[in-house]
This record gives sequence, C-alpha cells and structure tokens, in this order.
Amino acid sequence: MLNRYFPQIQNPVRFEGNESRNPLAFRYYDKNQKVGDKTMAEHLRFSVAYWHTMRGEGADIFGGASFQRDWRRSSKPLDCAKETAEAAFELFQKLGVEYYCFHDRDIAPEGDTFSQSCDYLKEIGALVKSLQRETGVKLLWGTANLFSNPLFAQGAGTSPNAHVMAWALAQVKNAIDITKELGGENYVFWGGREGYETLLNTNVKREQEQFARFLRMAVDYKKEIGFTGQFLIEPKPCEPMKHQYDSDAATTLYFLKEHGLIDHFKLNIEANHATLAGNSFEHELIVASIAGKLGSVDANRGDSLLGWDTDQFPTDLYSVTMAMMVILNQNGLGTGGLNFDAKVRRSSIDPLDLFYGHIGGMDTFARGLLVAQKMIDDKVFSGVIDDRYSSYGSGIGAQIMAGKVTMKDVEAWVRANGAPTMQSARQEMLENIFNSYIF
Amino acid sequence: MLNRYFPQIQNPVRFEGNESRNPLAFRYYDKNQKVGDKTMAEHLRFSVAYWHTMRGEGADIFGGASFQRDWRRSSKPLDCAKETAEAAFELFQKLGVEYYCFHDRDIAPEGDTFSQSCDYLKEIGALVKSLQRETGVKLLWGTANLFSNPLFAQGAGTSPNAHVMAWALAQVKNAIDITKELGGENYVFWGGREGYETLLNTNVKREQEQFARFLRMAVDYKKEIGFTGQFLIEPKPCEPMKHQYDSDAATTLYFLKEHGLIDHFKLNIEANHATLAGNSFEHELIVASIAGKLGSVDANRGDSLLGWDTDQFPTDLYSVTMAMMVILNQNGLGTGGLNFDAKVRRSSIDPLDLFYGHIGGMDTFARGLLVAQKMIDDKVFSGVIDDRYSSYGSGIGAQIMAGKVTMKDVEAWVRANGAPTMQSARQEMLENIFNSYIF
Amino acid sequence: MLNRYFPQIQNPVRFEGNESRNPLAFRYYDKNQKVGDKTMAEHLRFSVAYWHTMRGEGADIFGGASFQRDWRRSSKPLDCAKETAEAAFELFQKLGVEYYCFHDRDIAPEGDTFSQSCDYLKEIGALVKSLQRETGVKLLWGTANLFSNPLFAQGAGTSPNAHVMAWALAQVKNAIDITKELGGENYVFWGGREGYETLLNTNVKREQEQFARFLRMAVDYKKEIGFTGQFLIEPKPCEPMKHQYDSDAATTLYFLKEHGLIDHFKLNIEANHATLAGNSFEHELIVASIAGKLGSVDANRGDSLLGWDTDQFPTDLYSVTMAMMVILNQNGLGTGGLNFDAKVRRSSIDPLDLFYGHIGGMDTFARGLLVAQKMIDDKVFSGVIDDRYSSYGSGIGAQIMAGKVTMKDVEAWVRANGAPTMQSARQEMLENIFNSYIF
Amino acid sequence: MLNRYFPQIQNPVRFEGNESRNPLAFRYYDKNQKVGDKTMAEHLRFSVAYWHTMRGEGADIFGGASFQRDWRRSSKPLDCAKETAEAAFELFQKLGVEYYCFHDRDIAPEGDTFSQSCDYLKEIGALVKSLQRETGVKLLWGTANLFSNPLFAQGAGTSPNAHVMAWALAQVKNAIDITKELGGENYVFWGGREGYETLLNTNVKREQEQFARFLRMAVDYKKEIGFTGQFLIEPKPCEPMKHQYDSDAATTLYFLKEHGLIDHFKLNIEANHATLAGNSFEHELIVASIAGKLGSVDANRGDSLLGWDTDQFPTDLYSVTMAMMVILNQNGLGTGGLNFDAKVRRSSIDPLDLFYGHIGGMDTFARGLLVAQKMIDDKVFSGVIDDRYSSYGSGIGAQIMAGKVTMKDVEAWVRANGAPTMQSARQEMLENIFNSYIF
Repeated sequence: MLNRYFPQIQNPVRFEGNESRNPLAFRYYDKNQKVGDKTMAEHLRFSVAYWHTMRGEGADIFGGASFQRDWRRSSKPLDCAKETAEAAFELFQKLGVEYYCFHDRDIAPEGDTFSQSCDYLKEIGALVKSLQRETGVKLLWGTANLFSNPLFAQGAGTSPNAHVMAWALAQVKNAIDITKELGGENYVFWGGREGYETLLNTNVKREQEQFARFLRMAVDYKKEIGFTGQFLIEPKPCEPMKHQYDSDAATTLYFLKEHGLIDHFKLNIEANHATLAGNSFEHELIVASIAGKLGSVDANRGDSLLGWDTDQFPTDLYSVTMAMMVILNQNGLGTGGLNFDAKVRRSSIDPLDLFYGHIGGMDTFARGLLVAQKMIDDKVFSGVIDDRYSSYGSGIGAQIMAGKVTMKDVEAWVRANGAPTMQSARQEMLENIFNSYIF
Repeated sequence: MLNRYFPQIQNPVRFEGNESRNPLAFRYYDKNQKVGDKTMAEHLRFSVAYWHTMRGEGADIFGGASFQRDWRRSSKPLDCAKETAEAAFELFQKLGVEYYCFHDRDIAPEGDTFSQSCDYLKEIGALVKSLQRETGVKLLWGTANLFSNPLFAQGAGTSPNAHVMAWALAQVKNAIDITKELGGENYVFWGGREGYETLLNTNVKREQEQFARFLRMAVDYKKEIGFTGQFLIEPKPCEPMKHQYDSDAATTLYFLKEHGLIDHFKLNIEANHATLAGNSFEHELIVASIAGKLGSVDANRGDSLLGWDTDQFPTDLYSVTMAMMVILNQNGLGTGGLNFDAKVRRSSIDPLDLFYGHIGGMDTFARGLLVAQKMIDDKVFSGVIDDRYSSYGSGIGAQIMAGKVTMKDVEAWVRANGAPTMQSARQEMLENIFNSYIF
Repeated sequence: MLNRYFPQIQNPVRFEGNESRNPLAFRYYDKNQKVGDKTMAEHLRFSVAYWHTMRGEGADIFGGASFQRDWRRSSKPLDCAKETAEAAFELFQKLGVEYYCFHDRDIAPEGDTFSQSCDYLKEIGALVKSLQRETGVKLLWGTANLFSNPLFAQGAGTSPNAHVMAWALAQVKNAIDITKELGGENYVFWGGREGYETLLNTNVKREQEQFARFLRMAVDYKKEIGFTGQFLIEPKPCEPMKHQYDSDAATTLYFLKEHGLIDHFKLNIEANHATLAGNSFEHELIVASIAGKLGSVDANRGDSLLGWDTDQFPTDLYSVTMAMMVILNQNGLGTGGLNFDAKVRRSSIDPLDLFYGHIGGMDTFARGLLVAQKMIDDKVFSGVIDDRYSSYGSGIGAQIMAGKVTMKDVEAWVRANGAPTMQSARQEMLENIFNSYIF
Repeated sequence: MLNRYFPQIQNPVRFEGNESRNPLAFRYYDKNQKVGDKTMAEHLRFSVAYWHTMRGEGADIFGGASFQRDWRRSSKPLDCAKETAEAAFELFQKLGVEYYCFHDRDIAPEGDTFSQSCDYLKEIGALVKSLQRETGVKLLWGTANLFSNPLFAQGAGTSPNAHVMAWALAQVKNAIDITKELGGENYVFWGGREGYETLLNTNVKREQEQFARFLRMAVDYKKEIGFTGQFLIEPKPCEPMKHQYDSDAATTLYFLKEHGLIDHFKLNIEANHATLAGNSFEHELIVASIAGKLGSVDANRGDSLLGWDTDQFPTDLYSVTMAMMVILNQNGLGTGGLNFDAKVRRSSIDPLDLFYGHIGGMDTFARGLLVAQKMIDDKVFSGVIDDRYSSYGSGIGAQIMAGKVTMKDVEAWVRANGAPTMQSARQEMLENIFNSYIF
C-alpha cells in the first residue's frame, strides 16, 4: 500500500459498525455488504474529486491558500504533479474509494505553450495510469478545465474570440484523449464560463450555436477515436458567470434537444448546483431520470442560506435518502457514480480533515442507500403513489390518456357526472413515515 | 363614453408631455406618435388584467379584502358581474387601453354546477361582446382559472384524480369557446397548480404526460372549432405550488419539444415570474425570442428582496428598456401585447389608484420604447456585438462554425498559431452608454 | 373526554415506541419519560396554534378555502366560535398537548363595532375558561390580531392614522385582559403590519417611535392590572409588509434597547421567520439566548427554496436537535413553550391530517430532545469548544480579555512572540459526530 | 501632473454636459457646480478604493488573475508597492477624485515577520504621504486587512486563538497609526472573518465579547494617540463566513449598544452588503441615519439575482437617488464620503475600464444628487409624508404620543369614536412622481 503522505492513517479506513465512535472508521459503509442484488460499492461507486481534495488549498474569495499540502511543496511543477498523484492514490486506497475524477489541469500543470501543456498531460498521464494499475482505482470521468485560464474569461466554446474557441476545442481533444487512455468511464462538460455577464455585449443565440458546434465536434471526435465513455453535461445556473447557459437539468435537456445533441449526452447532477438554481437536489435528479438522462452525480451539499457554491460534503441524511430513492428507482447510475465534489473548509487545515470529510459523505450515502432500499422494498411511497393515480386506470381517466375522447366528449361527461370527490394528499403523514425510516 | 364608476375621471387620460405634473396625464405615452414605422399603440398593445384591476380587493395572505369597489356591491353574482363588466370597459376607455385579458371566472361567477357556470359565462360573454363593440376595446387573451377552485388543489391537468382532469378539460373548452366568441387574439395556459408539493406523493413523469395530453386535447379542439388565436404558456417556478412544471422559459420549451407540442404554442413571459425563477426579465424574453416563441408579455415587476409574486406595476425604466429592445429586435409581439398583470397595493384603496398604476406602467413602457428604438437606430450595442464576434467571419472561426474542421485539425491550428489575444468586454463602458440614453 | 369532532380518534394518541408503524401513535414522545431532571412534557411544553389548526381552511394566495371543518358550519358567528372551541379542546386532549395559543379574533368573531367585538371576546372567553378547567389544558400565550382587519393595512401601532393606533391599543388592552383572565403565561406581539411598503410615503423614525410608545403603554397597562405573564415579541423580516421593523432577533433587541423597553420583553423565535430573514433557526435562538431573551419558540419549518412563510410542521431532525441544544443549554424556556405555528397543506383536507401534522412535530422534537441531551451529557461539542478557546485562559489572551494590556503592549508582545500556530477547526469531524447521534 | 501609467488619458476627465457622447467625459459630475449650498464635490466626497482599483486583477473563485497591470510588474514587492502608489495618485488626479481608501496590505506588502510588515507600511506610508501632498488627494479612511492572511481563517478579534487576536490588535494599531499619519478622516472596521462557520465549534457569546474587547482597545488607543478620525463599522451578513456578527445596520448598532461602544462608532453602509442581508440599500441608510450613525458609504451595487458580493460600480439611478435623499436629509456625511468599493469585471482587462467604471459611478451619483435635491426642494415626498401623519398633531394622537393617556383611556375613546376612516397610501402615484424626476 502507498504510505507516504498520510502517515496518521496506517490502514485503510475500516467499517466498524454503527456503535463505533472512532472518527476514522465507517459506521455504515461496508463495501461488500449486499443491498438488494448489489454490494454497497457497486451501488454507490464513490469517487474522489482530484481538484478539491488534492489541489484545494482552503482559498476563498477573500483570502488565498490557508494550507499547503506536503505534496505541493516542490517548486518544480512536474515534480509537484507527480507527488500529488502519488498522494492522491494513497488517499484513494486508504479511503477505500474505487474511483476518482479530474480536470486536465488538476493532474498536470499548464505549460508555457499549448504544446507543452499537452506534453505535461501525457507525461503525468502515464504515471497516473501506472498508479491506477497498481491500486486498482479507476477513472470515473475526466474533463477539461476551461475556466481558470484567463483566456476563458469570456467563455470557451462560447467565446466571442474564435481563437479562444479553437484553443478550447484543442484542449478538450487532449482531455478526451487522456480520459480514453486512462479508461475513463465518462467524460464531463461543465461550462462554467459558457454564459454571459451582460446582454449589452452578448449575442445569446450565436453563443448557443457556438456551444452546440463545440459539443458536436466533441461527439464527432469521440466517434473518430472510438472512445466509448459516456458524455455528461453538468448544469449550473451561475457563478462564475452572471448567467450560465446550462442552468439546470431541464434547460440543458432543452438545449441538447434543440441542437440535435440529445442522443449523445447524459447529465451529471450536482446537489449544490441544483439549489443555486432554485431546485431541490431530488428535483434535478428526477427531471434527468425521467428523461433517461441521469448519468452521474456530484455528491455534495450547499448552504441554503448562502448564495454561492459552498461545496460541502453531503451529510444531510434526508437529502441523500431522497437522492438514493431516485437512483435506485432507475436501477443505478450505470457507468456514472457519486463523485464528492466537495472541499474541506478553509479552517480544516489538517490532511486528516480530508478523511473526515469523505468518511462523513460515504457513511451518509451508505445509510441513505439502506434507508431508501428499505422504503422501496416496503413500497411505502410507491404504493401510495400508485393508489393516488388509480382513477386513470379505467373510465374517463383511461379514455383521456388513451386519446379516445375529445374535449367535447369530456365536457358531456362532466355535465353528466357532477363534481369530483377530493381526497387528502397526506403530505404530513408521508413526511412522518419518511421520518420513521430516518430515526 | 361610459361614465358611471369613475366620476373623478371625466375625460380619457391625455398625453400632456414630459413637463406635465398632472398625475392623471401621460408624459410619454402618445398613442398615435410614430416610433419607427408603427405608432406607440401598435408597438405596445397595452392590456388591462381584468382579475387584478376589476376583481382585486387588496387581499394578501394575512388579510382579506381591504376595499370594496362600487361595482362589486350587488349581492347577486350575475348583477355584480354585469356591473363589473361595465366598470371595466369604462376604465379601459378612460385609460385609452385597447386590450384586456381575463380568466373565465373573472368575468362570470362560478355556478352551483358545472353547467350553470357555463351558462353564466355565456350570458356575461354576450354582454362583454356588446361592450367590446361599443368601445372598440379588444380581447388580447382569455384563459381559464384552474387554480382558485379547491378541486384544483392537487393540480388541474396534472391532478391525480381523473374526474378533476376531466373537469379542467371541460372548463378549458368553454374558456376557449368564449375567447373565440369574443375574438380573442390569443389563449393562455398558466399552470399554477400544475406542479407538486412533495415527491413523496407524486409521479412526476405521469403528471407531465397528463399535462401534455391535456394540452394536446386543447390543440385538437382549437383545430376542430377553427379558433385561430395563438396558444400561449406562461412559465412560473412556484407559488402556489412548491414546484411548478412550467418553471421558466427554457423548461417550458423543453417540455413542449419533448411532448411534440412545440409547434402549437408560444410563451407569455411575465417579469415577476422571471425573477422568481432566478432569471432576469430580459433573460426570459431572450430565451423565448431566439426560439421564435416570444408571444406575449405580462408586464409587471416584482421586488427583488421578496420571494413572492408582488405583481407591481412596471416602473423601472432600466428593465422596461431592456424588454423593449428584445421586443423591437424581434419586430414586435405579433398578436401578443403588454398585459399589466399588476395590482395596486393593499393600501391603495381609492379607485383612482388603478389609474395611477396603469398610467405609470404605460408611461414607463412608452419611454422605454423611445429609448430602445433610439439605441437600436444608433446601433450602439448591435455594433459592439457584431464587432465582438467578428473573428468568426473568416479563418479558423468560420471553418469551425461551418463544420469544415475536426478537433484534430483545430488542434494542429492551435499548435501552429500560439495563444489568443484578449480584448476587454467593456461592460462598464456599455453600462454607461445605456445610462446616457436613460438620463 | 370530549368526543364529538374527531370520532376517528377514540383515545388520546399513545406512545408506542420507535418500532410502531401506527401513524396515529407517538414513536418518541412519551410525556412522562424523564430526560435529565424533567419529563419530556416539562421540557417541551408543546402548544397548538389555534389559528392554523382550528381556523385554517387550506387557503393560499391563489385560492380560498379548500376544506370546511365540521366545527365551522354554523352560519351564526358566535355558535361557530363555540363549536370551534369545543373542537379545539377535544383535539388538545386527544393529542395530549398541554398548551395552546390564540389571537383574539381566532377564538371570537369580530363584531360590527369595537364594543361588540369586546363583548364577543368576553363571552367566548368564559367558555374557553371552562374548557381549560375541564381539560387541564393551559394558555401558553394570547395575542391580538392586528393584521387581518383592513384598518391595519398601513400598520397598527405604526399606522399614520392616529385613530387606527388608538383602535389597536384598545384591542390589545382587551387581548391582554382575556389573556390574564385565562391564566396565559405569556403575551405575544407580532407586528406583521408594523413596517413599510415604500420609503416614499414613510417616516421610519416616527413609526418606530410610535411603536415604542405602543409597547410602553402595554407595559404600563400590564403593571396596572397586575398581569404577570411574560411579554414576548416575535421577529419577522417581511410578509405581509415589504419590510417589518422587528426583522430578526438582533434588530428587535436593538429596537427594545434603543427605546428603553428591553427589561420588559423577551423574544418568541419562529423557525420560518428566521430563515426568511436569512438566518438559521439556531442562529436566531442563540442570539436571543445569549441576550437572556429567548422566551418562547414558534416551532415550525419553512422551505429553503420558497420565499414565503410556508409554516410547515417541524420534521427536520437536524434543525430540531440544534434548537433543543440551545434550549437545554439555557435550561429551558421558562414560561415559554414550543408552539406549533404550522398548518397542514392545502391538500390535507382530512381532519386526521391535523393529527398527523402535530404527531410528526412532537415526535421530531422528542427525538431531538433525546439526541441533544445525550450530546450535552457526553460533552461532545462543549468539550471541543472549551478546548478551542483555551488560549484565553492565561497569558496574553487572559490579559487582553481582562483589560490589563493596551494595544501598544500587545504589539510589543506580538513582535516578541512571532507568528501563531493554527489548528484545524474540525468542521467535517464535528458534523460527522453530530450525525453519529442522529443515525 | 503624474503621467506614466495611463498614457491614454492625457488630461483630467472633464465635465462636458449631458449631450456629450465622449465616454471619457462626465455628463453630470461638475465638481464645482453648486447644489444647494455646497458644490458637487463637497456633497459627494468621492473616494477610490485602492484594493479593487489598484490591486484588483480580475480574479474570481474559478480563476486567478485575468490581467496584470503595468504597475504590478516588478518582482520586488516594495518596488511594486511604490509603482502602485504612483499609478494610484495618477489615476486619482486624472479622475478628479479627492479621496481614496486603503487596507494596510493594499499599499504595502506583508513581510516575513510582523515587524517587517510594519516597516514596509511605514516606508510606503512616507511615499504615499508625499503623493498626497503633491496631488492634494486625501485619505478618506484607512483600515487593516484582517481577512486575507490565513491566520485569520477562524476570525481576527473573534479568533479562538489568543495569539491571533493579539496579532490582529497589533496590526490594527499600526493601521491606525498610518491612518493618523496620513490625515485619514475616518478609520473603518470590516469584520469579514468575525463570524462563524458552524455553531458546533463556536461560542458565540464569548466571540462577541472578544470582539467588543477588541474594539474597546482600539477606542482606548485612539484616545491615547489623539487620533481624531471617526471610527466606522461596515456591516455585512456573510461571505466569506457563513454568518458574520455585524450582519446589518441594526444588528451592528445593537452590538455596539450592548457592549457600551455606541458613542465611539458610526456605520459605513455598503449597497451590496445591504442587499446580501435582505435589505434595500436605502433601508440600511435610513436605519443608520435615524440613529445618527450614518458615517460613510461604500457606493457600489450588487446583482439582485446573484448571492455574492459582485461589487459593481453604482449605475442604477433609482437606487442612487434614494441614497442621496437619505444623505441630503441628514445634511451630508460629515467626515465620510462615497467610496467606490467596486471592481471592473474579469473581462474588463484594459486600464481604461477603470476610468469607465468610476466615471459611470460618479455621473450616476451626480445625477442622483441633482434629482434628490430637486425632490427635496419641491417637498414632493416630505409634504405627502407630513400630511400622512398629521392626525398625530392633535387630539388622541397627540395625547398618545405625549404619554398623557393610558390604554384604558384610549379604549374609552375608541368606544366613543367609532371606526377610523382610511385613506389611500398612494404608492403608485408616488412611484410615478419619483419617475417624473428620473425621466
């Protein structure tokens, strides 16, 4: 086992059961435990986010780095990248997480030229590949960072500057290449700068056409090289931009449909992005799921009283259980997984805090999985729901839904049949039942 | 001229010019003034909202009616409805507004049975028709109130109770009938109860299928009876429901596309609904417009610090000017118009306040029209925008957009052409230029 | 036992333990169970809100009543009020709740004149008093409804109309009288209309002086009649008004201090009002508590994605546990209690839903009490907190806090002592520990 | 005139009048124009924020610097600081702004030790002093940056680490020293890290006591050295912290009163902080003003649809006019001023954009001043307001306010005098009148 950067953790984090008070043990996550017909690990497919966990430094908008990790001390960018990769896989192993995700610029530094950046990416890619082999940890998805470089300040695919769009395309090509090379099961597009600051200088229609063209070229390239991973788009309404085009699930699905791209993409839904868009996490999951487009999840949480992406570890059992119900109801995430797009707080300066964060998230999802599976097995909500719509099973309801009656027919029926009888929708009782599974 | 309910106003409100301090005169709205190739009246197509203006009583969630209008004093519902209609057309005439909008239950009372409600609607409809003829005022759009009646507490088209859905269909049929009878130029669907309160009792997929079926039947009926008005959907994210399916423009367009309904509908965009959804008014207008789907506008304003539909009269010249730019850029609203979905405050108990509210909204839009037309004529923003994207006019930009290059080609180009040169996006300068047209 | 209006419930709701799946039983609330040195009932002091529970009709801003209770069927207002009172005490008994709260106009109807309203209040008051005696249920607090009557549209104590202020004062006098008569342990002021809509017509300074005068007169009257209950103010930031003067706990405490009223009032903190003000529930509780001013609690919850007062029953164990920690840490609420200022949803049309709502709230608080007490007993957070600030126990920290050093002294010390050593604030670990008590 | 860093601007920005289309001229700001009895410059006392304007690099939370200014190119921190100071005063002169503000770390770099930082501050201070003399530009206020250094991650005055508090005190001492040395007219405290992230690790009561102690020591030191500038506190509700103690004006005033500090401080109100706290800008101004505590203003604007501090230049004439009404009504800001705490957008990479930003802000405030003064001269709102409360001038209203009647007396009066007559509060008409001054 790798063992250099986290000497405080000498063994992989273990499952010790619910009664354990060991803060470095799992109380619920027992990777091999069967839940239904899959193990917990197969259900949850946890992934570490390389950017927050390995590259995060506690910075916020009012202050720079608040800690420097041991693996970031080298003054030579490539050495630093290599040490970071080693630390990363040590952490993955010790946490017992089987997947990770990265942006191209997380694993390898930006060079002085585009070509040099590509070379760096290949060089570090080779190291990462060997670390994957050595540890068995796999790549859930790769992506390109099209937002940090100031070139992208006015957009990447939607930049008004064609040279910038070209640069972004070339960068994505290389990011897809490395993702394929590393066996990535998906590739993600998060268009953090694909939006606008003010309509006074923006042609929204043409920016969206550019973005569609951008994605189309990626689809073509994927085919060209035979990359079989799933393409995913990750919606977010704003931050850094005033308005981002992929603002939420429905908006993104509309864009994909409008531009003939719907068959080539699924969605990567993030909890914190959902709430920033004014939607609940489970709402976004449901919207994607009923479209057959829920591909993967960025598992974190925001703060409902703060208006920015706080990217906290998911610890709210209510929200997580609702999420797991949607996921179980669509029979899992396929090639997707639960990626902890979460960062420790600025004051969590100890590398151990990275373990606490992930353990908390993993245990909450493990518990949420158990609760959700039990609810589904007990048919507590599905039974109520089926019953609630049962009037469509026959009579006028069935006729309407089958398209067998016109408005005139329905009017005649209503005139003949009087007023409906209403029934309670039972929200309070159902919330109590939910709670009876939680505590 | 009708002259019974507003004796304080003995003549139609006049245009007196910018210097006038008469609060009951227009300072900018001069209906016959040409702006470009249309008159102000043709551009703006103002409409009074029957519900707020004629039926509003100052109620809010913490208190019932705070005023009773003279035209609502009769204890007999039908008499009351007739007097209201007369007062309405008197107000339309005195304001000089050429359109109005209504829900079925605004103009006629709900009866004891469905059939009786239909009879009432027809009876009052005949009166309203004669008032239209007498005054020349036209119906911008009709709609059905599918939210006040407790039957609709769990949805109308999306109700889990098929009897309720049938009832709603029959009601809409009659509302379309009366709209056609009155020469309505559009018919609006606002699905205020078409959404959910909790996922614990809701099947989102089937509710959306129900709603699509509901709209499809209306489309079929429209064809059947030869109604030629435009069907419009009005998005809103929440209130009264926790989550409404037509939450914003993009979400609604997605729904329409997904269910094969897109050719039959346009959108009616409301300012206050836009901001409740986390979007600016102009954002919603642009989204609808670039899809060719901006059909009409509910012209009001919300309060950016309050989380509910305050439905205030539109008085912010910045917002109104942005709106008019979008509308002028798509060459007007066609059969749509600017409907004041706005109500006087609870403390504005004097009928004169209805005049102040509308005059303020009309003058702000008239001024916004003038400012926007001038900006467009001067090409101040369009020139900047065209220039900003000019790199797509040739070279690699043109090749990308024309689909003539692959990602590999682009990568080779980038490797050969170095880094882009960035230019300021000039937001501050453009905001100042905007202000130079405002003040 | 009273037994007329809720025949579905033939026995008081019982505690059946955690494993029970009976939706009409308590799983945690066992009123006589000792937790620390008090029983659950003594800790929690649950109260039913007469307005929502007995008078609520499912109305919202887009629709009137969605249900009519059996106790509201009489066409005679006084009869209706009497039947409502009987139903209320039957519900209190069957729920096993020992307290209730009311506004004057909840229990008795408004008359045609002020005097008649007073007479009605006295008459119903006598009935209520006898019902209190019969059932042993007590009045947690009374209050006056100074917001429904259109007279109060522009404020009650802050009305620009002196006649309205006088009316409000007279109404409050009678509400205090009846509260005293019924042995109310507190009297609450919620200034729902004490605020403004626009600064264009408002003199904020004089309105606040009026409100201070209003409260001062109530304090004087309390003394005059020897009423010994606690006066409480309930903060809320907005709704119905654009801006309410008592916007949150700190704002209200400032107002009270500024106007010399601080010794005569405590605060009644509502969860939903807290979040509308941008504060967490626990934040408002802490602010009040450390000022020695946390007097009582309106126990409900809002929806973090909706911008109005949804007044849902409190079912979030996280939030409720945090609340109970603050309450236990100040050794309880004294004469205050946990009043369920919560209403069943518009679609919860069955009287049984009232039981489900309260049972859910009571069980969540009972469970929260148990969890919070255990955390306090285990000193899990208090230990961490004491340790975290321990550097103030001696040395420069102690000297600073004791006022023994000047800035110059401190500067010298800093120059001599180098840079501080930072320690992790351990947020992730602490959240996990919290969760280990929750699930 | 200094002339090295902004060669595009060869002359100070001139007033050219309303018709000018020169984007580098003022259309309204004519510094010597008399408005009432003061010049525009005396009314407005504009100030440039050194941090945003001279040190801003276009960074946001998703990307680092997007531009590097010519004055930041030196690799030696002290040289860089000197060049920055020269560029700053060149900009002040060319803009014609008479004041500026800074944090200690804006003008001088942080050293390797505390002592070195102090030395740097003194050295650069001397340069800045000579530049002030040379240009006549004055220091509106100084402050200490207690938020960027990772030492302050858990607070400065409220840090749980006494060594950090000591460090912060020593830093503030030096910041006050340099402010005094430079003739600063005020000194500001913005407690950006004085708050908490989670109550699980926080003792709110003791942190507030620490903060009070911290301020008390500053007050004592001010007296000790004879600094006569005004101490100001700048409220903000959150960002970077989850919850900041000085969350809004009322909360801060409460804190100051509670801890006996009220006589020593006024408030510095920022527009964007106000809206983040759920208050309008003018609300915060009024709250401070009626307490006699409106000391200075951070003049910027936020985006009502974004949940973070966007710090945009103030260009909304409505908001600015309301602000100027409050300021004029309290007869100006005394030693305070209008500090543009605003930054150009990430894409505004041209130094000229700094000019556009400030010119836009200055012109909007100049126009707002003219409009507000005209409204005040015309008594349009004050007349309405005086009239609205006139019923308190005599009779029962006067008796109530004078404390001459008890609740019992008032009740008797109400019983004898019947129901009040209500009058419209005329919000719509007043908004129209406001608009008649705007356009």
